[in-house]
Amino acid sequence: MAVGEASTDFVPVPGVRLSSVSCGIKAKDKLDLVLLEFAAGSVTAGVFTRSHFAAAPVQLARQHLAHNNPRYFLINSGNANAATGEPGLADAGDCCRALSQQTGALPREVIPFSTGVIGERLPVDKITNALERILAGLDEDNWLLAARGIMTTDTRPKIASRQIEYDGGTVSLTGIAKGAGMIQPNMATMLAYVATDARCDKAALQEFLGQTVEKSFNRITVDSDTSTNDSCMLTATGLSGVEVNAGDNAARFLAALESLMKELAHGIIRDAEGATRFVEVRVSGGESDADCLKVAYSIANSPLMKTAIFAGDANWGRIVMAIGKADAHLDPSKIDVYLGDVCLMKSGGKDPDYTEAAGAAEMAREEITIRVDLNLGDCEETVWTSDLSDDYVTINAEYRT
Amino acid sequence: MAVGEASTDFVPVPGVRLSSVSCGIKAKDKLDLVLLEFAAGSVTAGVFTRSHFAAAPVQLARQHLAHNNPRYFLINSGNANAATGEPGLADAGDCCRALSQQTGALPREVIPFSTGVIGERLPVDKITNALERILAGLDEDNWLLAARGIMTTDTRPKIASRQIEYDGGTVSLTGIAKGAGMIQPNMATMLAYVATDARCDKAALQEFLGQTVEKSFNRITVDSDTSTNDSCMLTATGLSGVEVNAGDNAARFLAALESLMKELAHGIIRDAEGATRFVEVRVSGGESDADCLKVAYSIANSPLMKTAIFAGDANWGRIVMAIGKADAHLDPSKIDVYLGDVCLMKSGGKDPDYTEAAGAAEMAREEITIRVDLNLGDCEETVWTSDLSDDYVTINAEYRT
Repeated sequence: MAVGEASTDFVPVPGVRLSSVSCGIKAKDKLDLVLLEFAAGSVTAGVFTRSHFAAAPVQLARQHLAHNNPRYFLINSGNANAATGEPGLADAGDCCRALSQQTGALPREVIPFSTGVIGERLPVDKITNALERILAGLDEDNWLLAARGIMTTDTRPKIASRQIEYDGGTVSLTGIAKGAGMIQPNMATMLAYVATDARCDKAALQEFLGQTVEKSFNRITVDSDTSTNDSCMLTATGLSGVEVNAGDNAARFLAALESLMKELAHGIIRDAEGATRFVEVRVSGGESDADCLKVAYSIANSPLMKTAIFAGDANWGRIVMAIGKADAHLDPSKIDVYLGDVCLMKSGGKDPDYTEAAGAAEMAREEITIRVDLNLGDCEETVWTSDLSDDYVTINAEYRT
Repeated sequence: MAVGEASTDFVPVPGVRLSSVSCGIKAKDKLDLVLLEFAAGSVTAGVFTRSHFAAAPVQLARQHLAHNNPRYFLINSGNANAATGEPGLADAGDCCRALSQQTGALPREVIPFSTGVIGERLPVDKITNALERILAGLDEDNWLLAARGIMTTDTRPKIASRQIEYDGGTVSLTGIAKGAGMIQPNMATMLAYVATDARCDKAALQEFLGQTVEKSFNRITVDSDTSTNDSCMLTATGLSGVEVNAGDNAARFLAALESLMKELAHGIIRDAEGATRFVEVRVSGGESDADCLKVAYSIANSPLMKTAIFAGDANWGRIVMAIGKADAHLDPSKIDVYLGDVCLMKSGGKDPDYTEAAGAAEMAREEITIRVDLNLGDCEETVWTSDLSDDYVTINAEYRT
């Protein structure tokens, strides 16, 4: 069950070829290995989880990305290769070397990614035995296949595209993402890959990625749990010939990228484990962005708030509770709270015009907006989350069984 | 459903009389009003929620307690009188005045407490109309009745007693508590009342309360949600004649009080909404208590960790994830993790001797201990929590319906 429709349309990105096969990590011949190939001269930026227990592939990815531009992303789903210590690092390195031998790329030009169960050794042989097959399948049109191949508890692929018309030509952007639980990314979501044929320096690309992640993947939460494997990558092949490093070109590129990243991030929330609602929490009037974010996450991560939303219960007392426990500077007597356009609370007390019927009508929607005005300053932040349903518990209680 | 057995034994406390009736706030003639009366000369200490939206009775309680020692606690369940603004404060004050008129105590010698739904006006008439009846029922033996009267989603009353033999006589302590959800108290739990016939200064009593709350009610979490009404009160009637302000008398009193407070706090976790497990999370080897607490709460509040425990799944990867996301100083390569006596992780990697069967056997227990050694320093902290079951979602989705 997911909230709303998801488009599967996309445009290919010149210079990027993709492939996906089943190599036997997941049961039942499900897709579990994905390969992305980038044309020579492509430039890549990346952001990664801030977990102390960053997985082996994340550690390797950071190293490889620091001094090289990758030619390949080798991604497996079903096994996270996290908390696997030195042997896990060696396993990830072995996969890179095997792909290097078959392609002529340097081992450090291969970046490995993994997602799935934490704490199990990676079945290296299954991956290396499938390399010949996956290389044979590389094609510019395989974005949707790749989006399917990186899924774990996702019920549907997440894919989005944008095109920008410049004087010098058309720039295309296409991205895929996966993630449904263990979602409160800190720097990036579980796995997201965005590519473009724009021409861009590495420094500018890293800046664009950082800025847009802050407004997309770093503003979503399913369960407040941060993964060990979060990675978000942005690659520019340059083949459009349009340069977007600065000025108006950069501004338009950044806007399209932010829009695409938000669509992917929202796609994760719409498909969150057990989700029946898509919830936007917007907090304005704060003295600082940090205060707004604390209040927004306090609401978005409150299990009691999330179960009330699941029940379609306009239990505004729980919003009050969640605001109240936030470690932020606020004055209760000034706070206004809205559900959609319905005012629940005015200046810290129940709005005299509020009716349960009006609140219930807002709560009955599949897409809900909770708006809090702290009325203290000019700062504003928005986060997106899902509700907490019995299905979330069932999915996560049965994940390994 | 609750975890383990709960004793209903208690000893009366000389100088304390209690009563409970149904006044019509809850449906079906359930007990919803409780009165505690303290002998003249009794001394009271209290700690309260740190929520920005402290409920009206909490605001009044702080005022009344600052300059007076209360003669009465007037407690209603079913309505929290929280986020009710100035009218809510007036309502709580009206209840105090009404009791004052019937007893001769000053209005400020009455402390009001409320627990239940947030954001609804308090039905003052129902309470004041029941005062004559509830006063008529006051009795030293009514502790268990009072424990039942303060319940909301609790499935059973929480009550505990201790007795200490001193040269000068016997000191008795008895306490009651309520709370099952919206539990991550910050200064105190939802509602807890402990009384003793020890003789004690107000300053010493406040110190004893603060110290023991830190080791009991401030170390439990059901859902990371902090209530607007948390209050924990400690009253000393002095009628035993045994003075416990300092020295060995104080040390023994403090030990008995801490043990009693822990029993009540654990009682809340054992009866947590939907709980099927009682979980102790002990983090040692930290460089600071704060680091240990952050790691412990990161585990105890992780929805993915809690659903794994509900499923009896020794999914140690989720423990690793939860440690990894904690904003604490730690070195992953030094961390050991135990489930009961079974070592899951040694020096940051899976213990080579660990087997799924051994982990599953520990997870099958009703009482589970997760032990993390950070191996960096000498600090240690323990918190207690419950699992996250589909019943938690059901209970909280249906709370107001």
